Amino acid sequence: MNVEKINELKTWMKDHDTDLVYVTNPNTVTYFTGFASDPHERILALFFTVDKDPFLFTPALDAQAAKESSWEYDVVGYQDSQDPWKMIASEIHTRYGNPADITIEKASLSLDHFESFSAHFPNANFSKNLTPVIEQMQVRKTPKEIDTLIKAGDWADVAFDIGFSAIKKGATETEIIAEIEYQLKRKGVAKMSFDTEVLAAAKAANPHGTPGDDPVQENHFVLFDLGVLWQGYCSDATRTVAFKEPTAFQRKIYNIVLEAQLAAQKAVKPGIKASEVDKIAREVIESYGYGEAFNHRLGHGIGTTIHEYPSLVAGNDLVLDEGMCFSIEPGIYLPGEVGVRIEDCVYVTKDGCQPFTHTPKELTIID
Amino acid sequence: MNVEKINELKTWMKDHDTDLVYVTNPNTVTYFTGFASDPHERILALFFTVDKDPFLFTPALDAQAAKESSWEYDVVGYQDSQDPWKMIASEIHTRYGNPADITIEKASLSLDHFESFSAHFPNANFSKNLTPVIEQMQVRKTPKEIDTLIKAGDWADVAFDIGFSAIKKGATETEIIAEIEYQLKRKGVAKMSFDTEVLAAAKAANPHGTPGDDPVQENHFVLFDLGVLWQGYCSDATRTVAFKEPTAFQRKIYNIVLEAQLAAQKAVKPGIKASEVDKIAREVIESYGYGEAFNHRLGHGIGTTIHEYPSLVAGNDLVLDEGMCFSIEPGIYLPGEVGVRIEDCVYVTKDGCQPFTHTPKELTIID
Repeated sequence: MNVEKINELKTWMKDHDTDLVYVTNPNTVTYFTGFASDPHERILALFFTVDKDPFLFTPALDAQAAKESSWEYDVVGYQDSQDPWKMIASEIHTRYGNPADITIEKASLSLDHFESFSAHFPNANFSKNLTPVIEQMQVRKTPKEIDTLIKAGDWADVAFDIGFSAIKKGATETEIIAEIEYQLKRKGVAKMSFDTEVLAAAKAANPHGTPGDDPVQENHFVLFDLGVLWQGYCSDATRTVAFKEPTAFQRKIYNIVLEAQLAAQKAVKPGIKASEVDKIAREVIESYGYGEAFNHRLGHGIGTTIHEYPSLVAGNDLVLDEGMCFSIEPGIYLPGEVGVRIEDCVYVTKDGCQPFTHTPKELTIID
Repeated sequence: MNVEKINELKTWMKDHDTDLVYVTNPNTVTYFTGFASDPHERILALFFTVDKDPFLFTPALDAQAAKESSWEYDVVGYQDSQDPWKMIASEIHTRYGNPADITIEKASLSLDHFESFSAHFPNANFSKNLTPVIEQMQVRKTPKEIDTLIKAGDWADVAFDIGFSAIKKGATETEIIAEIEYQLKRKGVAKMSFDTEVLAAAKAANPHGTPGDDPVQENHFVLFDLGVLWQGYCSDATRTVAFKEPTAFQRKIYNIVLEAQLAAQKAVKPGIKASEVDKIAREVIESYGYGEAFNHRLGHGIGTTIHEYPSLVAGNDLVLDEGMCFSIEPGIYLPGEVGVRIEDCVYVTKDGCQPFTHTPKELTIID
């Protein structure tokens, strides 16, 4: 249970004259309660008022685990055969009366759940959005959070090491992934932070390509995009390596991406805008004539999730500050030809930034 | 691209006087277009009208893959630096004029996305919900879909086999999972349909327990809940096996769950209500005095997702029909003591049902 952050939320509630906060995002629930659960299509909900005790609402089959977590307040479980909305409304009315202003997580509440919930509070105002409040709370990581992110990054380096060693003639993308995840699990890393990507040769030219039975090819690149979940925190990093000597053209593309990645990473420090960092990398790639082939933002925030606030993208005028954590991942994708992406996630320090991953970024050639 | 289902949707649109359908669920997008993608926090959207050509809206980095899929209509890609809602609205206005009635997938559209989208159509009616329409479309699987589900089930049987073989003194939950997923990947199964659960001894008493470093224990149960994703379709099955001879009490609990599972599976046929099947299993467990320890519904639908319509739960009066596919998974959970769940997913036939998984359900004892 995160008492400090709960108090911060209550202060926000007072300042913004809201009677009830309804938390719907399972990650936000974990953030405040310490209880982690994926409710799938069932209902997981957390309610705060300024003055009274909060309560956590969970499926019955999770209630016991929630009670055994670090959460110290009430846990109300519901059976699959019960109407969760009626129960939630009744709990709220009994505990808190009739809240006039209810703040919701608009990015994490589906329209049908909103309709089911709000039907029980026909006169309440639902205009306030908790999503940006939580984003702001989470955007500067604490030293303890950064320590955990560093460990998650170390495991990503281990994963690269395993993956590079698994490259050999005939090895398929899926086989290399199997090797990485198997060895990590044997070392105690139970879960990746997202589906590991290993893409051979021209497949790397699709930034969201799907690994399959394709074998690595000599004199071509292999792209690795991977990360682990470590004590609730994610790593995410990308390396593109060559299997045997690459062509001069492949090298050229690689070096452009590397130059863009290093330039952006070097520019990160408190005071610079998110959009400016994106621009620095983009201008490098544009200067070589490949601007169109870098078809995504430079980066995304990282923490308890792999894609969170802030976004390093044109138009985001957020001023970067110490403790912010995000990816720097330029790429050039030439369909049917070659794809290169190089990514480190970093945390902003007093006067620069430090990467969470340390696998060399100079072109590695596997023989 | 699923022409038959697109035509079915258009017929529904005509019958219900709606001008535009906005599809938001990535699974529904795949269902109609054949294009599979996880957009994460980016926007993936599909729009249908009755008379004009539909279009698919994707992140720029997925646009190429979408164009190469079996989808034959337009693909509009947007850059991260662009406002997707403005682009979508402009596309809709240009292509379709000003739709007065827009049907949305209420279970798969977040409130903030709804607000961003609907702001561009201030006079439109958004009362119609596509979610139950899609559920109805997907609830009876075609013979081809069932064939794929059967193959997915076969892989779950292979997974059990690998898992049971990995049980030995000192083996931890995570190590057994590593073995299962490694060997499956080597055989060409790239992805599990959900995080594999292997729970040792009393941990199986938490129906949503998290595997970790706990070793299997002699004279105790090990619970396996697993499934694969095969050509877009899921399997999901649970077996509880004993490592060395179990106690008489453990056997007793096992046999109650087995009796409940078999009774429910035997009862499934066209004409019976979903709630009645739940009741049959529940009454067996209640008759032994463990009703409270079976704290979830009997089952859930399965198909392209692991949890879909229909739910086998008290209160669901849906009449089961040929082609419906769902799990039958009673359990008894006695915290700190013992946990047993046995699950097969089945498809309803003309006069009964057939399971997708065939690993024996009589108590298996690993020596």
